[in-house]
Amino acid sequence: MTTKSIEEVKASYYDYVKKMEAYGEALGLMFWDLRTGAPKKGIEQRSEAIGMLSSEIFEMSTSEEMKSYIKELSSVSNLDEKTAKMVQESKKDLERNLKIPAEEYKEMVILRSKAENVWESAKNNADFKSFQPYLERLVELTKKFIGYWGYEENPYNTLLDMYEPGMTVEILDRVFGQLRSEIVPLVKLLDEKGVKPKTDFLFKPFPKAQQKEFSLYVLDQLSYDFEAGRLDETVHPFALGLNPGDVRVTTKYDEKDWRTAIFGTIHEAGHALYEQNISQDLVGTNLCSGTSMGIHESQSLFYENFVGRNEKFWEKNYEALKSYSEGQFDQVSLEDFYRAINESKPSLIRIEADELTYPLHVMVRYEIEKGLFNGEIEVKDLPEVWNAKYKEYLGVVPEHDGEGVLQDVHWSGGSFGYFPSYALGYMYAAQIKVAMDKDIPEYDELLLNGDTKPIREWLTEKIHQHGKLKQPLEILKEVTGEELNAQYLVDYLKAKYKRVYQITE
Amino acid sequence: MTTKSIEEVKASYYDYVKKMEAYGEALGLMFWDLRTGAPKKGIEQRSEAIGMLSSEIFEMSTSEEMKSYIKELSSVSNLDEKTAKMVQESKKDLERNLKIPAEEYKEMVILRSKAENVWESAKNNADFKSFQPYLERLVELTKKFIGYWGYEENPYNTLLDMYEPGMTVEILDRVFGQLRSEIVPLVKLLDEKGVKPKTDFLFKPFPKAQQKEFSLYVLDQLSYDFEAGRLDETVHPFALGLNPGDVRVTTKYDEKDWRTAIFGTIHEAGHALYEQNISQDLVGTNLCSGTSMGIHESQSLFYENFVGRNEKFWEKNYEALKSYSEGQFDQVSLEDFYRAINESKPSLIRIEADELTYPLHVMVRYEIEKGLFNGEIEVKDLPEVWNAKYKEYLGVVPEHDGEGVLQDVHWSGGSFGYFPSYALGYMYAAQIKVAMDKDIPEYDELLLNGDTKPIREWLTEKIHQHGKLKQPLEILKEVTGEELNAQYLVDYLKAKYKRVYQITE
Repeated sequence: MTTKSIEEVKASYYDYVKKMEAYGEALGLMFWDLRTGAPKKGIEQRSEAIGMLSSEIFEMSTSEEMKSYIKELSSVSNLDEKTAKMVQESKKDLERNLKIPAEEYKEMVILRSKAENVWESAKNNADFKSFQPYLERLVELTKKFIGYWGYEENPYNTLLDMYEPGMTVEILDRVFGQLRSEIVPLVKLLDEKGVKPKTDFLFKPFPKAQQKEFSLYVLDQLSYDFEAGRLDETVHPFALGLNPGDVRVTTKYDEKDWRTAIFGTIHEAGHALYEQNISQDLVGTNLCSGTSMGIHESQSLFYENFVGRNEKFWEKNYEALKSYSEGQFDQVSLEDFYRAINESKPSLIRIEADELTYPLHVMVRYEIEKGLFNGEIEVKDLPEVWNAKYKEYLGVVPEHDGEGVLQDVHWSGGSFGYFPSYALGYMYAAQIKVAMDKDIPEYDELLLNGDTKPIREWLTEKIHQHGKLKQPLEILKEVTGEELNAQYLVDYLKAKYKRVYQITE
Repeated sequence: MTTKSIEEVKASYYDYVKKMEAYGEALGLMFWDLRTGAPKKGIEQRSEAIGMLSSEIFEMSTSEEMKSYIKELSSVSNLDEKTAKMVQESKKDLERNLKIPAEEYKEMVILRSKAENVWESAKNNADFKSFQPYLERLVELTKKFIGYWGYEENPYNTLLDMYEPGMTVEILDRVFGQLRSEIVPLVKLLDEKGVKPKTDFLFKPFPKAQQKEFSLYVLDQLSYDFEAGRLDETVHPFALGLNPGDVRVTTKYDEKDWRTAIFGTIHEAGHALYEQNISQDLVGTNLCSGTSMGIHESQSLFYENFVGRNEKFWEKNYEALKSYSEGQFDQVSLEDFYRAINESKPSLIRIEADELTYPLHVMVRYEIEKGLFNGEIEVKDLPEVWNAKYKEYLGVVPEHDGEGVLQDVHWSGGSFGYFPSYALGYMYAAQIKVAMDKDIPEYDELLLNGDTKPIREWLTEKIHQHGKLKQPLEILKEVTGEELNAQYLVDYLKAKYKRVYQITE
């Protein structure tokens, strides 16, 4: 009987993971396709295919073969860092997946795929009732999963940890409390003492084809690599990294509000730049993606807010925007334009919210999810709960569920515990920006010159390239020299919005 | 020890096949994506994924589990027809695949995927040398495969049989000989005694966006179901059935010759209508596709020639074409238009060839393939051989390989033995049309009224719905009451071209 050498085990393990990644890539493409124009009548059969392939990945992640790789490689004392991290990831998956019965896992995968399509028409028809049974089953299954996985302190913590390792209700309650205590007075200050920007010129007709051309122009300005990606239209925009050579951006076009497409594109570009710039050395391994949802969101929000809503960025690109538009900005000064795109106004739609009120949108979702998984809220009551919270936090109430509880795709995909990442990413981004300013004091000049590449390269060196080789809080500490600190975001928002609203006190 | 009942074995076998079909659907989508805009830098990794998934299907088709299903179910005397056909298909695959070593099969799959991309730039750059090593390896591997499979009479027969069961060099030499002996004199007659149509108005600029709109209009006219498909742009047009609810058409646009897109779209629509109308009962089985390449091609050529080049079809749709164009037809009568789109002129590009000379293009490829696999022709000599044959058969010589030997995608995908299907499909289509005329004497009136649905329904009833439940020659016999008869095509061509070229003799 011969025993395999560690090198042989390692090589087999790498092949095994590579196969799982390849299946994952096929799955990713099927999801992208479903969201960018797959014909309706093929969806049911496509869902079957997605279910089969997901089951296969699931089975591979929990197979005896995988167990034996993990066992053998975990016991090697001098394992190289990359392999060690890979094994850690596999082990986390194994432990997470092993506890779910295969049948329920498969049901979940098929359910998600169907629910996303049901959600899409439910949203269009503002018909929560048609989506309700799907959401109920999604929550129910997820609760069962939490039961299998176990939890500490709060069932919802288990979900948070999946997207942001180490995150808890305790931390979030504290950080969100801090943010809220600073944002709400600031919103009030602007309302009472601020000079409101004029915004009427924003809402003139801007043809879709020209918005698309300008989106492509902006992606190019951000050094998005078109040989490693493409831009498509969808209902709820996303970016998807199939591999670093194929990272797709999607956006949606509103002819009455060009900001939806352009800021959406910039946001997704931030995600895409992360995935395009992961080290080639990680391709085909389970480390070849962003390290956490929070860090991912820090990249998209960095681009959306610190690039896309920066004064110098528009000093560079305003003329281009004018040239793609139908003349709506011809009589508008850059100063008025800049103030307009940074208007803060409590509103209904998260992805169209301004920087300042955005965290409040996240908090509504956070509290609802927490309530759903603590048994304090039921799915059937969601429209009511949603509307009440919007009234309380933002002072606005949706006219129908399409612009209320049905607005986000996340829950239809079974993503619970994801929303807080948006606010975390926001805090990370503000903290990272302060660190970047030390290395790149000429930041504003770069934007003014349309030379965003050094900014991207700094982010690649510090964050992108590492993929999952480093943990989120490890990255934050290495890049900024300290732990998560919400004060950076607060300082940024205060300075910016006082300038936009012309408050000199 | 318990023994499974036949019903249980059958159920397991169905699940097993369903999984293979699901993997095939994922593969299909990856191929479609590669050909319709997948970013360049992601291709290498995508090829890996395609290789992995293909290997998995290959392994499933030759596994002990599959062998046992085939063995157990083959021995059941009263097996239902559908299952019996499924088992027959599985057995054919098993026997074909079992003889190929897994490593070589995998090499072939990866090679195909890479070669298609190399071919694309080779074609654009008219650079045969860059494609040559890939083609050499494709031929070499295919020869090895023929060695594993064995052959009767002629090595090339084994390849022919894969696309058209029962087809041989002997039959093709005979049928092609007959066609050639009738077509060549007819071409000569038109040249000497015919009145040539005016065609200058065909080649005015026709913007791509409007060609696309008109392509969509035409697909709708043909009762293509947009809820079960979509239209995209590609280099070498194809139709692809992922499942009957998702059958995609692709086309390409030439702004200097609108016919490329429109007749290409109609051709692919013929393929797509076949796949969209396969019985729902066959979804998820290995019978859910066209029964052979020849029958498939009979459907595309039926639509391209018997619908798309029919006088009544244009009597209905000429005004629409005019409305999408930039005025190029404003001074052109329907009669002149009809004659122009049916011009016959020996030319270089197969997919743009007219009906009459089309079979000659196929014969060139047939003879080259036969020579490659009989060892009479070497890959390195292909450009020379190609050009010599075009000169001999069609009297024209390509200026560069991009419009010569590199023009077709097939060889880059390892499809050898496929080309003859085009001419077979053509003969089938003419024979089927005569049968249809007996059931639908009002054929021309239907086209004139834009009511193509009864035509599609007749084809669905006779051909589409059956998928692979029936063999090609079985279908031909059932539908037309006789064996393959090249005379129908000859009669059709003679009548049509004498009318177009105003020869009254």
